[in-house]
Amino acid sequence: MIIDCHGHYTTAPNQLELFRDRQLAGLADVNRRPTTTDLGITDDQIRDSVEKAQLKLQRERGTDVTIFSPRAAGMAHHVGTAETSQVWSRICNDLVHRVCTLYPDNFVGVCQLPQSPGVPPANCIDELTRCVTELGFIGCNLNPDPSGGYWKDPPLTDRYWYPLYEKMVELDVPAMVHVSSSCNPCFHATGAHYINGDTTAFMQFITGNLFKDFPTLKFIIPHGGGAVPYHWGRYRGLAQDMKRPLLSEHVMKNVFFDTCVYHQPGIDLLTRVIPAENILFASEMVGAVKGIDPETGHHFDDTKRYVDAVKLSADDKKKIFEGNALKVYGRLGAALKRRKAA
Amino acid sequence: MIIDCHGHYTTAPNQLELFRDRQLAGLADVNRRPTTTDLGITDDQIRDSVEKAQLKLQRERGTDVTIFSPRAAGMAHHVGTAETSQVWSRICNDLVHRVCTLYPDNFVGVCQLPQSPGVPPANCIDELTRCVTELGFIGCNLNPDPSGGYWKDPPLTDRYWYPLYEKMVELDVPAMVHVSSSCNPCFHATGAHYINGDTTAFMQFITGNLFKDFPTLKFIIPHGGGAVPYHWGRYRGLAQDMKRPLLSEHVMKNVFFDTCVYHQPGIDLLTRVIPAENILFASEMVGAVKGIDPETGHHFDDTKRYVDAVKLSADDKKKIFEGNALKVYGRLGAALKRRKAA
Repeated sequence: MIIDCHGHYTTAPNQLELFRDRQLAGLADVNRRPTTTDLGITDDQIRDSVEKAQLKLQRERGTDVTIFSPRAAGMAHHVGTAETSQVWSRICNDLVHRVCTLYPDNFVGVCQLPQSPGVPPANCIDELTRCVTELGFIGCNLNPDPSGGYWKDPPLTDRYWYPLYEKMVELDVPAMVHVSSSCNPCFHATGAHYINGDTTAFMQFITGNLFKDFPTLKFIIPHGGGAVPYHWGRYRGLAQDMKRPLLSEHVMKNVFFDTCVYHQPGIDLLTRVIPAENILFASEMVGAVKGIDPETGHHFDDTKRYVDAVKLSADDKKKIFEGNALKVYGRLGAALKRRKAA
Repeated sequence: MIIDCHGHYTTAPNQLELFRDRQLAGLADVNRRPTTTDLGITDDQIRDSVEKAQLKLQRERGTDVTIFSPRAAGMAHHVGTAETSQVWSRICNDLVHRVCTLYPDNFVGVCQLPQSPGVPPANCIDELTRCVTELGFIGCNLNPDPSGGYWKDPPLTDRYWYPLYEKMVELDVPAMVHVSSSCNPCFHATGAHYINGDTTAFMQFITGNLFKDFPTLKFIIPHGGGAVPYHWGRYRGLAQDMKRPLLSEHVMKNVFFDTCVYHQPGIDLLTRVIPAENILFASEMVGAVKGIDPETGHHFDDTKRYVDAVKLSADDKKKIFEGNALKVYGRLGAALKRRKAA
C-alpha cells in the first residue's frame, strides 16, 4: 500500500471561499456576518472537486491513500480573532470529513487547529478531540507561527504548547508542523515561509528538550524537512557544539520528514542522509507546485517517481511508502481497517 | 589559488566586545558612553588572534586567501539606533582592515554596513564608499532583515534598497546576503535565522525583477544557498508557475552560492544541481560549527575536503576555488595584484 501523508483539500468547491469572504467581511461589518455555517455544498460537488484532481492523480501515480487536511495556506490563523479561527477550522475540518466519508478507501482526515496569535494552544484541544473521536481523524496540522510570518509566539519547545501536546499524546495523534500563508511581504508562502517554518521547527527541537518531557510525541516536518537534510552536517555539528545528544537519540525518535522535495537529486540526498525509518512518503498534491518539469516531462510533485528511483532496499521503500506512516500515525491502521470493513 | 569567500573576524581581541558593551551601556546611561573609538588593540594582539585560528586553518587546509568581514552575528543591526550602527560598523570595518594590512597575502576585506531597522539603506553608502575606496575592500555584507528575526523591512527587491544597489554597481562590488543575530526566540541564529535568510532572499529574487533594473548587480547567498539547492525542483517549478523566465536567465546571472555546507552529501547535491559557474568556495571558518565530525574525523567546516571529493572536472573545480570569486568580486584581482606588488 502506498500512503501519501501530505495532501490538502486545495480544490474545495467555491462556496468555501465565499463563506470565508463573508466571515471576514463580518469582522468589519457585523451585518455582513454569515447567518449559517451550512456551505450549501452537495456531495456531487465534493465528488467533482476530487475526482478530477486528487483521485485522478492517485490513480495515475499509483498511490492508494492520502492523509488529507484542509488547505494549509487557507488556515490563515493570523486573520481575525480566535473565534474566527474556531468557526473556520470547524468548517474546514467538517468538509474534509465529508471527503473522507465519501471516499473512505482514498482519504483519511487530519485536522486544522483553531490557533490564533497570542492565544494559548490549549484552545485547540476541543477541536482536536472532536476531530479525532467524532470524525475519525488521525492527526493535526500544527502552525509554529500563527502570526503568519512575524513569529511572535513562543518556540514549539515552550511550555506554552504543552497542554496541546498532552492531548496529542493521550489521543495518540502526531502533528505535521505546517505554517499557513504569510502576511509578511518578505516571505513568499510556499517558496520561503513554508521551508523556513520547517527548518525553524527542527532547530527548535534541537535547542530544547521537548522529547524528554514527551517521549511518545511525534512530529512530521514536511517539505523534506525544509533545509535540514541538505545541512545535516551543520545540524549534527551544532547539536554537538551545544552538548546535545546525537540527533538519532535527541530528536529522530520523534521527528519525521516527508518526501515533498520536487526533484530527484533532493530525494537522493534525503534518503542518503536521513534513515529510512524517519521518512514518510508524501507529494503535497494538489499543492505548491502544479507544473510539469521540462527536464523530466513529469509533474514536479510526482514524488513517487523519485522515491521509486532511489537506491534503497525494497524493505526501506516499504517503510517509506507504508510502514512508517502506520507507526507515526498511531490511529491509521485502525482507520484503514474500519474503512475496509464498512 | 584557493579563495575562501566567506570568513568572519570571529576571533577579534576582547577589547572589541568591551567597547561594544560600553557603547550599548551608553544607550541606557549617557555617562557610560565610551569616550574614544580607539580600542587599544595592538598589532601583536591582532596577529595572535588570527595566527592561532584563521591563518592556522588556512595553512592546514591548504587555502590561500580569505575574503574577510566582521563577525556576522556581531553586526546586530537591531540593537540601538542608526548612529549606534554607524559607529559600530566603522570600528569593525577598521579592525578588519588592520588584519588585511598585516596579512595582505591572506585576507581581503569585505565590510559590515551600518544598517538599522526602518532606516533606508541609502544611509550605508558613505561607509561602503569609504571601505572600498579608502580601505581597499571588495564587497559588503547586506542584511536582508535588520530587525533581527522579525523581518520588518521591505524585501530585497524593493526600491527601498535601490540607492545602495546603485552605489554597489558603480563601485563594482557584490554583496553577500547575510543576516545577523536573532532577537526572536523562535530563531536560533546559525541553525535557523541564517539558513532562513538565505532561502528567503533567493525567493525574493525569483518573485521580483531586480536584475532587469540592475543587470550587473551581484549577490552571494551563503551557507550553500540556504534550502534552495535541496529544493531546486520546487524553485524551478514555482518560477514556472509564476510565469518567470528560467532561473538560469532570471536570477542565476546575478546570484551565487557558497560552499558552506558541512557534509559531503550536501556538497554533492550542490554541485549536482547548481552550475559550477554559480558556486564559490567558502568555509565560514572560524564560524558557525567548530567541532570535528565523528563520522569523518575532520572538522565539519573543512569544506575544501568535500569540494575536492566531488565528481567535477578540474576546470569546474578551478572555477569554484578561484575563477568565480575573481568574476563576482570585480575588485578582487586588482586587490591581489596590489598586495603582491606591495
